[in-house]
Amino acid sequence: MLNRPRVVENGNLGPVNSTVVPRYSGAPTFALLPRLDEIEQSGGTAEVKVIGVPFDAGVSYRPGARFGPGHVRQSSRLLRPYNPATDTSPFAQVQVADAGDMAVNPFDIDEAIAAIQADAMELTADGARLMTIGGDHSIALPLLRAAAERAGAPVALLHFDAHLDTWDTYFGAAYTHGTPFRRAAEEGLLVTEAACHVGTRGPLYGRKDREDDARFGFGIVASSDIYRQGADAVAARLGERIGDHPLYISVDIDVLDPAHAPGTGTPEAGGMTSRELLEILRGLRGLNLVGADVVEVAPAYDHAELTGIAAAHVAYDLIGLLGDRP
Amino acid sequence: MLNRPRVVENGNLGPVNSTVVPRYSGAPTFALLPRLDEIEQSGGTAEVKVIGVPFDAGVSYRPGARFGPGHVRQSSRLLRPYNPATDTSPFAQVQVADAGDMAVNPFDIDEAIAAIQADAMELTADGARLMTIGGDHSIALPLLRAAAERAGAPVALLHFDAHLDTWDTYFGAAYTHGTPFRRAAEEGLLVTEAACHVGTRGPLYGRKDREDDARFGFGIVASSDIYRQGADAVAARLGERIGDHPLYISVDIDVLDPAHAPGTGTPEAGGMTSRELLEILRGLRGLNLVGADVVEVAPAYDHAELTGIAAAHVAYDLIGLLGDRP
Amino acid sequence: MLNRPRVVENGNLGPVNSTVVPRYSGAPTFALLPRLDEIEQSGGTAEVKVIGVPFDAGVSYRPGARFGPGHVRQSSRLLRPYNPATDTSPFAQVQVADAGDMAVNPFDIDEAIAAIQADAMELTADGARLMTIGGDHSIALPLLRAAAERAGAPVALLHFDAHLDTWDTYFGAAYTHGTPFRRAAEEGLLVTEAACHVGTRGPLYGRKDREDDARFGFGIVASSDIYRQGADAVAARLGERIGDHPLYISVDIDVLDPAHAPGTGTPEAGGMTSRELLEILRGLRGLNLVGADVVEVAPAYDHAELTGIAAAHVAYDLIGLLGDRP
Amino acid sequence: MLNRPRVVENGNLGPVNSTVVPRYSGAPTFALLPRLDEIEQSGGTAEVKVIGVPFDAGVSYRPGARFGPGHVRQSSRLLRPYNPATDTSPFAQVQVADAGDMAVNPFDIDEAIAAIQADAMELTADGARLMTIGGDHSIALPLLRAAAERAGAPVALLHFDAHLDTWDTYFGAAYTHGTPFRRAAEEGLLVTEAACHVGTRGPLYGRKDREDDARFGFGIVASSDIYRQGADAVAARLGERIGDHPLYISVDIDVLDPAHAPGTGTPEAGGMTSRELLEILRGLRGLNLVGADVVEVAPAYDHAELTGIAAAHVAYDLIGLLGDRP
Amino acid sequence: MLNRPRVVENGNLGPVNSTVVPRYSGAPTFALLPRLDEIEQSGGTAEVKVIGVPFDAGVSYRPGARFGPGHVRQSSRLLRPYNPATDTSPFAQVQVADAGDMAVNPFDIDEAIAAIQADAMELTADGARLMTIGGDHSIALPLLRAAAERAGAPVALLHFDAHLDTWDTYFGAAYTHGTPFRRAAEEGLLVTEAACHVGTRGPLYGRKDREDDARFGFGIVASSDIYRQGADAVAARLGERIGDHPLYISVDIDVLDPAHAPGTGTPEAGGMTSRELLEILRGLRGLNLVGADVVEVAPAYDHAELTGIAAAHVAYDLIGLLGDRP
Amino acid sequence: MLNRPRVVENGNLGPVNSTVVPRYSGAPTFALLPRLDEIEQSGGTAEVKVIGVPFDAGVSYRPGARFGPGHVRQSSRLLRPYNPATDTSPFAQVQVADAGDMAVNPFDIDEAIAAIQADAMELTADGARLMTIGGDHSIALPLLRAAAERAGAPVALLHFDAHLDTWDTYFGAAYTHGTPFRRAAEEGLLVTEAACHVGTRGPLYGRKDREDDARFGFGIVASSDIYRQGADAVAARLGERIGDHPLYISVDIDVLDPAHAPGTGTPEAGGMTSRELLEILRGLRGLNLVGADVVEVAPAYDHAELTGIAAAHVAYDLIGLLGDRP
Repeated sequence: MLNRPRVVENGNLGPVNSTVVPRYSGAPTFALLPRLDEIEQSGGTAEVKVIGVPFDAGVSYRPGARFGPGHVRQSSRLLRPYNPATDTSPFAQVQVADAGDMAVNPFDIDEAIAAIQADAMELTADGARLMTIGGDHSIALPLLRAAAERAGAPVALLHFDAHLDTWDTYFGAAYTHGTPFRRAAEEGLLVTEAACHVGTRGPLYGRKDREDDARFGFGIVASSDIYRQGADAVAARLGERIGDHPLYISVDIDVLDPAHAPGTGTPEAGGMTSRELLEILRGLRGLNLVGADVVEVAPAYDHAELTGIAAAHVAYDLIGLLGDRP
Repeated sequence: MLNRPRVVENGNLGPVNSTVVPRYSGAPTFALLPRLDEIEQSGGTAEVKVIGVPFDAGVSYRPGARFGPGHVRQSSRLLRPYNPATDTSPFAQVQVADAGDMAVNPFDIDEAIAAIQADAMELTADGARLMTIGGDHSIALPLLRAAAERAGAPVALLHFDAHLDTWDTYFGAAYTHGTPFRRAAEEGLLVTEAACHVGTRGPLYGRKDREDDARFGFGIVASSDIYRQGADAVAARLGERIGDHPLYISVDIDVLDPAHAPGTGTPEAGGMTSRELLEILRGLRGLNLVGADVVEVAPAYDHAELTGIAAAHVAYDLIGLLGDRP
Repeated sequence: MLNRPRVVENGNLGPVNSTVVPRYSGAPTFALLPRLDEIEQSGGTAEVKVIGVPFDAGVSYRPGARFGPGHVRQSSRLLRPYNPATDTSPFAQVQVADAGDMAVNPFDIDEAIAAIQADAMELTADGARLMTIGGDHSIALPLLRAAAERAGAPVALLHFDAHLDTWDTYFGAAYTHGTPFRRAAEEGLLVTEAACHVGTRGPLYGRKDREDDARFGFGIVASSDIYRQGADAVAARLGERIGDHPLYISVDIDVLDPAHAPGTGTPEAGGMTSRELLEILRGLRGLNLVGADVVEVAPAYDHAELTGIAAAHVAYDLIGLLGDRP
Repeated sequence: MLNRPRVVENGNLGPVNSTVVPRYSGAPTFALLPRLDEIEQSGGTAEVKVIGVPFDAGVSYRPGARFGPGHVRQSSRLLRPYNPATDTSPFAQVQVADAGDMAVNPFDIDEAIAAIQADAMELTADGARLMTIGGDHSIALPLLRAAAERAGAPVALLHFDAHLDTWDTYFGAAYTHGTPFRRAAEEGLLVTEAACHVGTRGPLYGRKDREDDARFGFGIVASSDIYRQGADAVAARLGERIGDHPLYISVDIDVLDPAHAPGTGTPEAGGMTSRELLEILRGLRGLNLVGADVVEVAPAYDHAELTGIAAAHVAYDLIGLLGDRP
Repeated sequence: MLNRPRVVENGNLGPVNSTVVPRYSGAPTFALLPRLDEIEQSGGTAEVKVIGVPFDAGVSYRPGARFGPGHVRQSSRLLRPYNPATDTSPFAQVQVADAGDMAVNPFDIDEAIAAIQADAMELTADGARLMTIGGDHSIALPLLRAAAERAGAPVALLHFDAHLDTWDTYFGAAYTHGTPFRRAAEEGLLVTEAACHVGTRGPLYGRKDREDDARFGFGIVASSDIYRQGADAVAARLGERIGDHPLYISVDIDVLDPAHAPGTGTPEAGGMTSRELLEILRGLRGLNLVGADVVEVAPAYDHAELTGIAAAHVAYDLIGLLGDRP
Repeated sequence: MLNRPRVVENGNLGPVNSTVVPRYSGAPTFALLPRLDEIEQSGGTAEVKVIGVPFDAGVSYRPGARFGPGHVRQSSRLLRPYNPATDTSPFAQVQVADAGDMAVNPFDIDEAIAAIQADAMELTADGARLMTIGGDHSIALPLLRAAAERAGAPVALLHFDAHLDTWDTYFGAAYTHGTPFRRAAEEGLLVTEAACHVGTRGPLYGRKDREDDARFGFGIVASSDIYRQGADAVAARLGERIGDHPLYISVDIDVLDPAHAPGTGTPEAGGMTSRELLEILRGLRGLNLVGADVVEVAPAYDHAELTGIAAAHVAYDLIGLLGDRP
């Protein structure tokens, strides 16, 4: 009774078996996967850990991404174990577990960033890779610090976003959701010639924004480029740019058009579809993905879990890439 | 007074004339068409009948499609009589009427399925073809039984859906919204070599799902195929597969991306647009359509009738195909 | 790291300490209480268990209460450990734990009712009392069966609801959300002279409904009676009726006015306020409460967790009464 | 098949029998009552006719009440035949039928008002009384003209509203939703010493508004008076004022607090509850009600049919009063 | 052209004349009042200034009150110049103007609090009193500092809120939306024997919360006290407590029940109605009000401006009290 | 204090500097641009004026576009000064200012149309071009009259819309949102061989609609044409048709698919994406744009400012075209 049988495949403990237990029954871990402590109590370890970072004190417009991790988990309950698009079973490749949420101070950005970095280091001490669910985009900086430190080298970056996020400061603050990748570049965490913004659109503060960004070395594939070239060509081009560097993928859900992701803080018209985003990700197999995040889901602006479902599918495909090791 | 003049074209009684009667005035029949009893009282018959099946006891996740028929009718009030995309007047080709809703037991799936089948047989006793509005997808089975019986032969099937719906059982239940087409195949209702899923995407329980499906003989055109090939090529390919078999088209509204159809029970990211779906349907003219349904509209999750309007337009084009007889 | 310190009071493990861990961080158990398995793993037992029953196949109108347990838990995260209205600490009186959700078949009402009864018996085998979160009202019958069996005697009943729920059958079905208390009376589970509907309003099928109800022995305190007499007088009157019988309290959230509980399946205008309901419950201290439920929260119709918050507060006060033993 | 058995009581055809036909099945007439043409086709007549007036070109702020009649009907599907609060069966007292909606020009207020008056005269030519569902409040003037003409005398008026609606003109327009009762008084349609605004609150343009209103002879029972005196005292006071004049009751749904009626065009804080309104109406039995309306339901601003349900219950009780003849 | 005539009364420039200019036309200042710069450009001064503080970095749960000032202004457009409840014209008593919003750093609470204090001092340098619209409750501290400094003495306080807001720290932070009144008491800004929380309800962290609060000297009138005693008795009791001290009134909109104010960050069931709140405020005339705020309106959770309208009406009555000087 | 520094570029006063003043602080002018009176008070003039026309009495289905201008302004606050898609700074090319809203009579369409024409003439007396935000589409006629008069010649027209809007009358009314371009053609305001509908789709009343339209000389690029040909080819084709005629662009936001623009009055499935629309506009540089509008944004049906943001981006690109003069 109250027992919840799980799918077990390839020796790895997978989701609750939803042909026997309704998906809406029980606490929603990501994709109904086991909690990390369940795995650890039985002596196991997880090679990919899903971790939430409910933090949004770095936002300049609509807040609310602090509720993002819970919302994405709830929206992930329909995910099933086998991905026909890639002919893989992401939860069977390696053990994946839900590590819960970090407990981050909402009142002090600096303390929060330090805590996220420390937690990320601890969670990856056993060699695990993190699939992080934000939270606002300021969390990408400490996650990149941890990823680069674990990789022992600067990392390549694919940054899916409507915005560049390489601005310098807002209201004098250096650590916000608009600045993480400038900080990361300054700190030497990135191989910027293997770093690229994907899906950008919408107005900037000035031409200088783009010039600064280029000076750091970032590439840009705009939303309109995806419209004209198609997902396959874009994926191929990104793969070439990244090469065999260890790669971090950061997905701001506002990379999707507001029609596909209303539940976010700084939406811009003219974005890509969720199908385009998923097809690009599926074109990136074979790269050396060492960490990933999906951020900026703000549930108060979502409708019918539209945004949450898109984020959950993105995370699902990213987990597939994280576990796809030779 | 309180008189509602109608458009009459080609001898067929059409919608209320909305240049004289506001569209928001009066009970919303589908497209403001006459009720079947109005037609019958004046001695006429309808060759295409719009029928609602407000039933959702077969759903495994979000319920609410029981309110679908009323919602789609409400969302259909802006439809006008002439379809410029096909240069046809669907309500002028043959007499179309709104037959109202079936009265289906919400507490007993088996009884419900039997009642739907009986009602469908009765409604088609005069040779009429049905445009059914669901309701969840479990209603497709009794509708297919009736369609095949009236056709006197197994039927070809175009199944627009994010999902395969050829699973075997859920919680031990054989008749659910995830199983109708397996049952239909088992019962010999389908010409499976002329049957095809269109618009599928999202994870499955395992590779075996796809293998089972293929063993039954179904074809698959995934959402990503539509992205790469375009609506025209897909329509052409489907037309070839179907040939001149009598055809049933079943449209689960979740075939659309959640951005286009938030109001449904099991949404999956990465879907097709309503434009793609309509363009494919318009590429299917000249086939022998004997019945059609649009299902899984769950209004509690809809916004601004977004999903209802998409479903109404789909039904409108399907009515055009149902009446498009030499 | 990722450690979540808890409030400990009177030797009982309470909620996560929300002055250190943000309330929106981590899986939302009821009031952020420990899970039952956490308590049991450390060798403890829980005297009050919060258990969800995500089941809504018994509803005659708007479905969706299957998502009720998760929604109420989410809405309960602001609850704090001390109740100034009663000067008690509900989670310190006895050990309270969240036992998760039952896994109930959505396709077979009879099987579901049997499973709920079995699960309830198992959860109470150690003497624990249940605070159940529904689900639709059909779950009250198996819960009453278990409560009466554990009490070794028929139980008194306070039934807060807009409706009587003593109808006989719908569509031929005996076990639905409109019939549990008739079945309970027929099965001898109730001391009907100590049973009372509270908060009823809205039309009935006929005068006979009320006569049947009275014949079974139920009392009625209508919503208008509460308006005229006030919460204190009503509570006093209810206390007298109940006496020292073991008591079960069943709260259909639709007892509240739709303004206070839009997120429910069969709302009726003219209802009581959440303040009235809470004040009546607070006037019932000293009774022998052996079990309680809050049902019919349908999140798809809720707004800003309005209904969920009301239900969470009701459950919080009921837990206080369940643990308030000499 | 597709047959919909109805409740028949006292020789009058009532609602569809919802223990056999689900309430969400079929076109929603008010309370699932028969359409007027169904009654007339079988040679009967209706003594109370429910008529919708989907018109909102007279509003000064939020439009949308043109969708009110359809929304209230949809929200009325849960109404049952017997009213325990008054121990009456409103649909059994006299034959009640749903006469559908008037077809009113949205672009010309004067033409619309004339058409409403003409339609109302025609609908009452057989002695029927009208239960009208708006539409904005400008429709009350032509309805009062018809009511007074049928009564052969000026009528008493109970006007439930947050506002006085006795302003003179807006933007030079004499016929708007803020002016109907001034026009009615000027035209001699009212016994103003037996006319009273009930539930008013919120700011006015100036003290003169109230002085003008008093000069016409209207009484005022403010929302705060209801708070202090209670529904029973208010009902008694209103009954005395009205005496045995033929009475028209006009209910602007914004008389309810925005919490109880968000779906309206000019909401004001501090309003009455739906329970207070229903209790006052129930205290008005024995008066000579000759017509009634419920207006200003604007569905685009409603949530979960909250406002629609309140309006439906109000209309239900008003129908009870309209049919409550010696 | 594009001219917007205003109501002028008693020499004071009032709202745009909404019988000539539609209320939805033009930028929504509070109640369509003139902007402060318009008054100042014509050489005038404003005795009451409406000022927004769009800041919400101090919240512990749902953020979003940064959008509160704009939302309340938008919801205030229906306010008219004359208040019949008090027989006063708040905008005619003294010149009232809308001073716009402060520009507050969202990333640094300490800097924000200092800036709010400085701005408040500057705005009141000419003797004006402030009607502030928040923003979260952390803004009350700098506003109280300014008010006490301008008053030249500690001030009495009426604090309408579900919560005490006298907690010490959260996550180590001293300045948050849960702590302003403890800080104010510690800083000697308050005459705590003339300070009172009104409308409190819901659980606390422990009995000590209430003991601490009492030790500081605050009084408490709980929501349940208002239910039992009524608004008039409560207002009288509060008036006595305050005496002739200069008074500051701080209204957290969550003092209202979630049914009346869903759009807020930390809602608690069992609250007061907007009618009760307005009636209490109207019972406070004749006191020496030196400043007031309405805070914690979080529009993302509001529906149909329900919460905004309540806040706007509260501010309207507070402006009446602020200008009500001998 | 309360000072709001602005971006100044090329001598033109631009938006508030949002790296110092939060975007959600202060009254939302379009893109946070200066008000026209601010420019004029400092002796300047604006070459492009953003003007709202809050009028919706011409709609045949869902009203509410009267709230469009305020909503689009609110949704425009995230716009920044530099458009990387065109490598231009629209607010630096010429002085752009927000002229506020016209005050239009909601009760008399003829008076409203005359007033809009008069206001447009006055606003353009200094040679300024107008970027108008509606309002329903009936406002396009007086705007075209003014544009043609200022141009001294008939104008070319790009009309982005799901509908033709060349119907003759509705309910006998000649001036509605479905008729402006027929009236404009009849009045000789258009060079119809340089006029084109773009993005049409959905059913018509009859084949004659299209024939009438063609007889007037309009071209049509359907939504399906854009799907098949792509934005670049369509833009090129439109550019050729327009030539060097003075051009007016009218964008009905329902040209977008309901997924991209739910907040509108007469939505049709199968529409274009916001990306397609923006890419087409960006392909139209170098034409002689003399005026533009974006209409039919109905906020009550919008979600998360989805539609408002799309409209704001469209207006932003149109402003870029309006100011893009040699």
